Amino acid sequence: MQNMRPRMKKGDAPAGPKLLARRLRLHTHREAVVVIRTDSPIARAEGLGPHSQILLRGRGREARATLFQVEQPIIGIDEAALSEAVWQRLGLEEGDMLTVSHASPLESLACVRHRIHGHRLSQSEMDGIVRDVAAGNYADVHLAAFLTASSAMPLDEKETYFLARAMVESGECLQWSSAVVVDKHCLGGLPGNRTTPIIVAIAAACGLTMPKTSSRAITSPAGTADTMAMLAPVDLDIAAIKRVVAKEGGCLAWGGAVSLAPADDIFIGIERTLDIDTEGQLIASVLSKKVAAGATHVVIDIPVGPTAKVRSRATASAITERLAKMAECFGIKLVCVQTDGSQPVGYGVGPALEAMDVLAVLQDGPDAPHDLRSRACFLAGAVLELGSAAPVGGGTRLAEETLLSGKAWQKFERICMAQGGMRQPGVASLKQPVLALHSGRVIYMDNRKIAQLAKLAGAPDVPTAGVRMQVRLGDEVAVGEPLLTVHAEAPGHMNYALAYARSNPGMVEIG
Amino acid sequence: MQNMRPRMKKGDAPAGPKLLARRLRLHTHREAVVVIRTDSPIARAEGLGPHSQILLRGRGREARATLFQVEQPIIGIDEAALSEAVWQRLGLEEGDMLTVSHASPLESLACVRHRIHGHRLSQSEMDGIVRDVAAGNYADVHLAAFLTASSAMPLDEKETYFLARAMVESGECLQWSSAVVVDKHCLGGLPGNRTTPIIVAIAAACGLTMPKTSSRAITSPAGTADTMAMLAPVDLDIAAIKRVVAKEGGCLAWGGAVSLAPADDIFIGIERTLDIDTEGQLIASVLSKKVAAGATHVVIDIPVGPTAKVRSRATASAITERLAKMAECFGIKLVCVQTDGSQPVGYGVGPALEAMDVLAVLQDGPDAPHDLRSRACFLAGAVLELGSAAPVGGGTRLAEETLLSGKAWQKFERICMAQGGMRQPGVASLKQPVLALHSGRVIYMDNRKIAQLAKLAGAPDVPTAGVRMQVRLGDEVAVGEPLLTVHAEAPGHMNYALAYARSNPGMVEIG
Repeated sequence: MQNMRPRMKKGDAPAGPKLLARRLRLHTHREAVVVIRTDSPIARAEGLGPHSQILLRGRGREARATLFQVEQPIIGIDEAALSEAVWQRLGLEEGDMLTVSHASPLESLACVRHRIHGHRLSQSEMDGIVRDVAAGNYADVHLAAFLTASSAMPLDEKETYFLARAMVESGECLQWSSAVVVDKHCLGGLPGNRTTPIIVAIAAACGLTMPKTSSRAITSPAGTADTMAMLAPVDLDIAAIKRVVAKEGGCLAWGGAVSLAPADDIFIGIERTLDIDTEGQLIASVLSKKVAAGATHVVIDIPVGPTAKVRSRATASAITERLAKMAECFGIKLVCVQTDGSQPVGYGVGPALEAMDVLAVLQDGPDAPHDLRSRACFLAGAVLELGSAAPVGGGTRLAEETLLSGKAWQKFERICMAQGGMRQPGVASLKQPVLALHSGRVIYMDNRKIAQLAKLAGAPDVPTAGVRMQVRLGDEVAVGEPLLTVHAEAPGHMNYALAYARSNPGMVEIG
Repeated sequence: MQNMRPRMKKGDAPAGPKLLARRLRLHTHREAVVVIRTDSPIARAEGLGPHSQILLRGRGREARATLFQVEQPIIGIDEAALSEAVWQRLGLEEGDMLTVSHASPLESLACVRHRIHGHRLSQSEMDGIVRDVAAGNYADVHLAAFLTASSAMPLDEKETYFLARAMVESGECLQWSSAVVVDKHCLGGLPGNRTTPIIVAIAAACGLTMPKTSSRAITSPAGTADTMAMLAPVDLDIAAIKRVVAKEGGCLAWGGAVSLAPADDIFIGIERTLDIDTEGQLIASVLSKKVAAGATHVVIDIPVGPTAKVRSRATASAITERLAKMAECFGIKLVCVQTDGSQPVGYGVGPALEAMDVLAVLQDGPDAPHDLRSRACFLAGAVLELGSAAPVGGGTRLAEETLLSGKAWQKFERICMAQGGMRQPGVASLKQPVLALHSGRVIYMDNRKIAQLAKLAGAPDVPTAGVRMQVRLGDEVAVGEPLLTVHAEAPGHMNYALAYARSNPGMVEIG
């Protein structure tokens, strides 16, 4: 202190007393929580109170956590019980000791506050925020404040680029020897739209390099990784991905195991909790994942429909423009394709049910859903053209031929083998149809409600659970005919789902 | 369902299976958290996953909570362990059973989302939000989103009024028979500025009705309720407040026991966590508390200084204007007084140390801090004039006389007796001075850092802890003379505080 001389020697900052780290396998989504006894002498000496931000040190690492205090002796007085998120962040083992102390305020939060009050963020400010987010230093309230601020005053072009760059740098990056590395992404919101496995099989069969990493479901009834996990192991590390791609030209892996743009996943979790979509965040999210995955040529599927994520062609066009501009900044060739988003795709909604649709299309079976097949070929065509594996205008035809000839199916089988062996999806033990109350024509489907129905049935945690659609828009149905069937494994789930169907008129409307 | 006939009878919504409520006395500040075992058959059947929003029903009440799941058997497989906040909200007793189910999305969150995207809120929308907030239905992320949105696009005049009205209606309201009920409020940020007990004693001694309810500290080293608790019981219910005021004309009670505008306290908690101040929120907060307390004439103390809450006279004037307009809407006569906010007031910072300053002023002792005395008389004068107990321009003089004559002290003693008996503040066992490193004149004090120092010493949880200032701006000090003394009860606290003093040059600057 410049003008004051406290009676302590320089450098003897309080060492911080130690507590025994206790693993409860406490699942809090990913919030860092530490539980200490109210009567802990250390908490008292350090002046730690509930909801303090605490700095934990162990195994040479540091992590922040929110403090809860407990009076009942469910943990020892000398223990600090950690949520699984922070246990893993510190890489602790049973018996490890921890020091606990007050966490000093995060500097990057000052930037968040400035952003709330209308100041634009620079690259270095954005870097600081994203670094802290990726390190798990932000509590959920801080994440909510940042996302709300960048939604209330939307991220501009520069900030979106800064955010995407910062997110790329927050994690690992894949590098490939091929000059052309194709990828695809769907903006989502359409249940059953599981084109990715089919597209990868076609693209790889046509000689392109397509190392696809996908997410698991966050709020949807299935992500591509959930569906692919029904057919082959998807939990590949970087070495395994490289090996599969070197051998087969493509893979279908879970992105969570390789930590590409991890800050993005943290943001997405809170966006879903708040149910806010911010366009800048979306653009940065898509681009950062593609840049980190090493893609050079990317096709974006934008389903447009009243209950899809993108509701109008105008919005789709605006997103297309922003994505294209941003892709250019990163040197990526990008094409957006607007597709019909007015109803679910294929029959199945849920991991196993969607996997069966994928198999049926790849095997060209009699029960292959026509809509999934044609969407997949259309998008695969765009990938083939963008990657120069087909002449402009000839992509869809080449995709169709690759499917019909069985080459796509053979490639898919080989990819599954290379990933660890092919599996057969299971079938749910409980099935209950939902029937038409009167005759007429199907005039409307609500994607969101159908997705919710599948989730109430247990998807994606119960992989065989979900919904199998039995009608499509325009179909004539007679009274008493099934509109869809709910698949579940537990009577509780089945009851919830059917109660939801009953109380939600208009999920499938008959005119 | 309009067009579908699920195979369930109408009305047989899933009853929801039961879990045994377990009280852990888990302190989470006020977040509603429920912990259930990962292997709980009920969680599985209901499809509940970590961080779901759960609806709990017990004792005929409902509450929402965030779900955490635990693998270790620290609780039983048939138990639901609740954080103290939600235990008390449900009014549970040991042995009670709970039903758990998915919580449906809150309708008022749609209004928050609209607000984020720039739509102004109506009275009924604001009512819906505040009702849910007061009921504890908002998770912290939702509160953060609402507060960030109303900071990024500030609340306008109408919204501020709507918010204040909604907050008043979120809790109880006090009613008084006197036509004139005076009150005062300080916008805060000034350590040791404990004028309230002195003002109440003077006003009541002069015949005014001043039923004062105050808060405990949220992030400061002491709130008025913390300081008053050193001198008398403050935990009074409405009946006790009424009785004390009927007898003595005034009281000095803790507001938390009577639930005036409870939504406001919840907002304040998150504002402090995020460290954002929103002017509209501040205006609504001040007015809602005064309206709920039944005040008719209110004096607002606005300390202005570089490290006070309000940093410039321009900001103070803007706040004055907004407060005055809003007070008019509620039919309250309100006067704002700008005061010097450049340094702490009195000697003590911390509950017991401030209580000693208050006693010294009331008893007109030789060690009474002159600045606290003159501020209290100045503000009491404004209260007396506004409440027509003194002629315009004669308030401060009457306040001085009331102090000097001993009438204020007698009134204070009687109020303390009526509240349950007078007490003497304790004294800390550890004291360490912080000394001047060179000679010169004190040219600057940082209120925020001095407040932080007092908190690190243990205040307000350790009531005797804090800081005793020994110099004021303009004082000449010689090298080695004490600038302030840290008071603490635990060596850990003392070490923290001294380390903080050492690493924070400029807390007390000598030119």
